[in-house]
Amino acid sequence: MKKIILDENEIPKEWYNIQADLKTPLDPPLNPKTKEPIGPEDLKAIFPMGLIKQEVSQERYIPIPEEVREIYRIWRPSPLYRAERLEKALKTPAKIYFKWEGVSPPGSHKPNSAVAQAYYNMKEGVERIATETGAGQWGSSLAFATQIFGIKCRVYMVKCSYEQKPYRRVLMENWGAEVFSSPTNLTNVGKEILRRDPNTSGSLGMAISEAVEDAATHEDTNYALGSVLNHVVLHQTIIGLEMKKQFEAIDEYPDIVVGCVGGGSNFSGACFPFVRDKIVGDKPDLKIVSVEPLACPTLTKGEYRYDFGDSVGLTPFLKMYTLGHTFVPAAIHAGGLRYHGDSPLLCKLTKDGYMEAVAYYQNEVFEAAELFVRTEGFVVAPEAAHAVKAAIDFAKMCKQKNEEKIIVFANSGHGHFDLSAYDAYHNHQIQDYTHSEESIKKAISQLPDI
Amino acid sequence: MKKIILDENEIPKEWYNIQADLKTPLDPPLNPKTKEPIGPEDLKAIFPMGLIKQEVSQERYIPIPEEVREIYRIWRPSPLYRAERLEKALKTPAKIYFKWEGVSPPGSHKPNSAVAQAYYNMKEGVERIATETGAGQWGSSLAFATQIFGIKCRVYMVKCSYEQKPYRRVLMENWGAEVFSSPTNLTNVGKEILRRDPNTSGSLGMAISEAVEDAATHEDTNYALGSVLNHVVLHQTIIGLEMKKQFEAIDEYPDIVVGCVGGGSNFSGACFPFVRDKIVGDKPDLKIVSVEPLACPTLTKGEYRYDFGDSVGLTPFLKMYTLGHTFVPAAIHAGGLRYHGDSPLLCKLTKDGYMEAVAYYQNEVFEAAELFVRTEGFVVAPEAAHAVKAAIDFAKMCKQKNEEKIIVFANSGHGHFDLSAYDAYHNHQIQDYTHSEESIKKAISQLPDI
Repeated sequence: MKKIILDENEIPKEWYNIQADLKTPLDPPLNPKTKEPIGPEDLKAIFPMGLIKQEVSQERYIPIPEEVREIYRIWRPSPLYRAERLEKALKTPAKIYFKWEGVSPPGSHKPNSAVAQAYYNMKEGVERIATETGAGQWGSSLAFATQIFGIKCRVYMVKCSYEQKPYRRVLMENWGAEVFSSPTNLTNVGKEILRRDPNTSGSLGMAISEAVEDAATHEDTNYALGSVLNHVVLHQTIIGLEMKKQFEAIDEYPDIVVGCVGGGSNFSGACFPFVRDKIVGDKPDLKIVSVEPLACPTLTKGEYRYDFGDSVGLTPFLKMYTLGHTFVPAAIHAGGLRYHGDSPLLCKLTKDGYMEAVAYYQNEVFEAAELFVRTEGFVVAPEAAHAVKAAIDFAKMCKQKNEEKIIVFANSGHGHFDLSAYDAYHNHQIQDYTHSEESIKKAISQLPDI
Repeated sequence: MKKIILDENEIPKEWYNIQADLKTPLDPPLNPKTKEPIGPEDLKAIFPMGLIKQEVSQERYIPIPEEVREIYRIWRPSPLYRAERLEKALKTPAKIYFKWEGVSPPGSHKPNSAVAQAYYNMKEGVERIATETGAGQWGSSLAFATQIFGIKCRVYMVKCSYEQKPYRRVLMENWGAEVFSSPTNLTNVGKEILRRDPNTSGSLGMAISEAVEDAATHEDTNYALGSVLNHVVLHQTIIGLEMKKQFEAIDEYPDIVVGCVGGGSNFSGACFPFVRDKIVGDKPDLKIVSVEPLACPTLTKGEYRYDFGDSVGLTPFLKMYTLGHTFVPAAIHAGGLRYHGDSPLLCKLTKDGYMEAVAYYQNEVFEAAELFVRTEGFVVAPEAAHAVKAAIDFAKMCKQKNEEKIIVFANSGHGHFDLSAYDAYHNHQIQDYTHSEESIKKAISQLPDI
């Protein structure tokens, strides 16, 4: 085992904004009614200007405020590990590295953006932030971040998760957040949903609607999103910027960069600094690979077109790969990967050929996770396990071809709150979900042409 | 926030054996029948010679095998943190540091010894290790360690924990261990207990008995203990040796060293390298403080005398502070601190005046933990929270006296599997247990004189 640790004064001082290096600009978000591009003014009701400016910025590097770096120091720079025992188990000539984000207090990469978002809201005098959470990774990260900057936090947690994952709720409460089982009677959207179906188990779409309504109807309250948007992806580039420094420290450079994709913030953050080397640098052959579940194959089976960012239809239209916002992915354990779309930046770079995507079944992903846990020790989240699976597959290919390639994967978080999923795997209770081409086509066909 | 990180080649190459620096030798363990000292030969049925030698060694420094250091590299050197936001919240002139063992894959200090124990068993051809676990910290650490060295592991897990803490069981199974709800029908002890009381909820004493019987009756099987014994404490000195290097790196030295004590391995490991400076060095005024629950006040209310190490009476007599091996501590959430005795080395050094002890109620401990979580971010285990409480109290004293002292506490592990305890605290469901002087005296009075 070898871990590459940077000193805390080596935490990057700027985030990297890949918008500056795109050969053609990103298609803008559209107002779903007028179909006209959305401007910064349209977002002011729910986001602070500091974040709106980042959302549309064309500057290549954006300074990280010292107050944010100070909080990053709690767990950053995160370690880059060489997975030597995994390599030995696979008998591969490849070198496998992983960037480990499980060291943050909430246990994932999410606080990289939560801390920045809480900071900019605090700077602009926002007293309260409303957000939604499914499994709880984002909600707990925002609770952690708002607590630090003295902002109140309300989390609308999808009812079935609220009931099934009480520990995640307690984690948020530990950091001072109010957590409600969504739908609630606290919003008009929630009341209407409950009126129609008092026994609903909730959904991420409903919870987003409640949080957005909460923010839009309270003067002192903003909204925060944990993935997809450009400013969220921007904050996550701290991951890839550190990775580049860590590879420089050992005088290596990866051949293959791998990561799981739900909304895309973790993997975009990890790979965009490397994608830059493909676009404007000397690394045209670098392979960059997204990994998604076959139960939610956005990049591998979706269409590249405009769609709503949420499943209810409240947000602007975003240009992205989508399965259709009415598509309901099967109930896999990697809850963080159950999103019908993906970050528009990640989607554009995939469309433009800078990166590719693969998709896997649940059981093969857990099999890979188990091998990882038994060789490298750390229990990874089911989401991150998708990246482990792809990294192992590439290492096996290297063995067949006897190639000493350097593989690195973004290991987005620990699975300490996902052990019931591992238990189900041990007991052969994991189903290999997929969706028919027809069901995907049907959901996409319901989208209006733009 | 400032963390002091050492490079992985600075992992100490030797453990520190405080037996070499004792002014009078440790009273030996006694055979309970003959009352004669136990020799190395007596332990061969259940421990490998490599560990037995360490148990009785008088050498000051004992080399750490390179294979063990290689595994330590997964999470060691562990970070030493400056808790600046906690200091600010307390408005104290004191500096507060903590040594964070929650970074290990099982989440506590326990693998520091589990890895060493698994290694020496592997070297001597042992194919299988049996052990007991209560809440699961030790069982999961031994599962992690045996998996790495290719040894089978069987864990007898106290029935009520097995049922209440399924995630800890799954963690052990993830690392390939067999986990059984104790008492089982697999041992004679277990069968006899079940015959008398089929509905027993189990106890650590019963589980120890089952594991020891398993080891004693299987040629290929040894037993492993997670605390108390000299060799376990020895392995944990890696904590304190790193701490000394880390303080040297910032040119500081603590005035007060604090840690929670259950069996004593975490705190002994953290403080013995500092205790050496009191015994033979130039730090006579260094304050070293054990923290225990009022529900199990071994050092603060117990007597220093010979007693069994387990609650059933299978082990040798050990000279230590004890509440009597039949004493049953109240069911506090800090399950790892519910032990009637303590490490004989720690007890002797307390008796000899090199360290002192304090005891707290549960609610004040959780109150301290909550302040820590909200300022420093990391969710600490209820056991470690006892050390947090004492560190905060010393910092408050420094404020009153306007003293800029340096306080450091051993932060033994994370509380990701203890969130139900935090939930109970939020809901005012935590009881402040204590035991009457009479009940303690009664348990101690049942011990034979030696």
